[in-house]
Amino acid sequence: MGSSKKLVELFYDVLSPYSWLGFEVLCRYQKCWNIELRLRPAFLGAIMKETGNQPPAMVPNRGMYMMKDIPRMANYYQVPLQNPKDFFGTIIEKGSLSAMRFITAVDMTQPLFLEPISRELWMRIWSRDEDITQPESILAAAGTAGLPADLAQQLLERSSFPEVKERLKEVTAEAIRYGAFGMPSYVVHVNGEPHLFFGSDRLELLGNFLGEKWLGPVPTPLNARM
Amino acid sequence: MGSSKKLVELFYDVLSPYSWLGFEVLCRYQKCWNIELRLRPAFLGAIMKETGNQPPAMVPNRGMYMMKDIPRMANYYQVPLQNPKDFFGTIIEKGSLSAMRFITAVDMTQPLFLEPISRELWMRIWSRDEDITQPESILAAAGTAGLPADLAQQLLERSSFPEVKERLKEVTAEAIRYGAFGMPSYVVHVNGEPHLFFGSDRLELLGNFLGEKWLGPVPTPLNARM
Repeated sequence: MGSSKKLVELFYDVLSPYSWLGFEVLCRYQKCWNIELRLRPAFLGAIMKETGNQPPAMVPNRGMYMMKDIPRMANYYQVPLQNPKDFFGTIIEKGSLSAMRFITAVDMTQPLFLEPISRELWMRIWSRDEDITQPESILAAAGTAGLPADLAQQLLERSSFPEVKERLKEVTAEAIRYGAFGMPSYVVHVNGEPHLFFGSDRLELLGNFLGEKWLGPVPTPLNARM
Repeated sequence: MGSSKKLVELFYDVLSPYSWLGFEVLCRYQKCWNIELRLRPAFLGAIMKETGNQPPAMVPNRGMYMMKDIPRMANYYQVPLQNPKDFFGTIIEKGSLSAMRFITAVDMTQPLFLEPISRELWMRIWSRDEDITQPESILAAAGTAGLPADLAQQLLERSSFPEVKERLKEVTAEAIRYGAFGMPSYVVHVNGEPHLFFGSDRLELLGNFLGEKWLGPVPTPLNARM
């Protein structure tokens, strides 16, 4: 400890339930590990398409497994994630492009709201089985996260500006350049070198790589005191 | 603790490096968790084919990631796993059918040798980059594991008997019926219900499910004392 904080970038998309787990655990650990967490909203659809990766739920046994794995992980990670009624439709067919563009606009202009707005969008799609594609859905999430209504409306309009679309494309391309093929992906910077880790289940390994102790997905204040 | 041991079945194939990690960790934890570990050698090739799953290394970014993830995991898990020179050839093209049939013959007739022979075959393919397809390779692994030469030769012949082929098919089919789509797969039996877990990274979750404490991939005797 005491040395300068190591930068950990988290590439995520709110369409990805496992990203939510990684997001919450890293948000907790930024308080007890010597890291600077940088949230990097990116577009999962493009990452899957451009790397030739297939959604895991496309393999029937894998999809069935995810339906059981997600609630077990959510329970252990203490994240209020719940399977939507139409599990496969939500994962495979529902898009997150408008939501991720909105989040990108937030990141570019109101970065303090990035964490709560991302969380509220996950709450909609992955906890309460609500829509995240329509403007009113996005505005509702922004409101719950504390963004004033006029600002939210302004950011929603801004979401379709070329600079926002371009930025989302750039962050997504950056993730792919780091070697990402899915989400959540973490890029840890050590001695000027980037190191990619993938999955909500690589956080213990990531901690070990950083020389930090894994205290489970829910580090308590007592556990966290080093 | 004190209650009757819970049965944990481990379905594995020595072609799978992540299976080796799951295997070693569970072999360690059977000494500190209240479980009965049952090793279930099965054939990964058939599981992938029959469930329509594709080897992760087929996605180039994923393959590149595995080449970095495997040594990092191996180091943290303290398993002497090392990438073979021809990483993709080993994973995608090399077969494990003859090795898994031999292991099945061992399981059927010399179960005490099942653990050490599986380990020696992993040592060959995933630590020393040696062949596991030829009869002499399999005999060498059996010898290192302590199986007398005449018995090894006998088991090698037995490997091609219909009853052995059939048994390997049956165990593989059983894994698929439990919902497996890759390896390592664990089936935990609680109150007469089977629960599938997948991956070398689900052992902490598996422990939590069993009401057992995760002490990292290398539980020390001190840590392990409950």
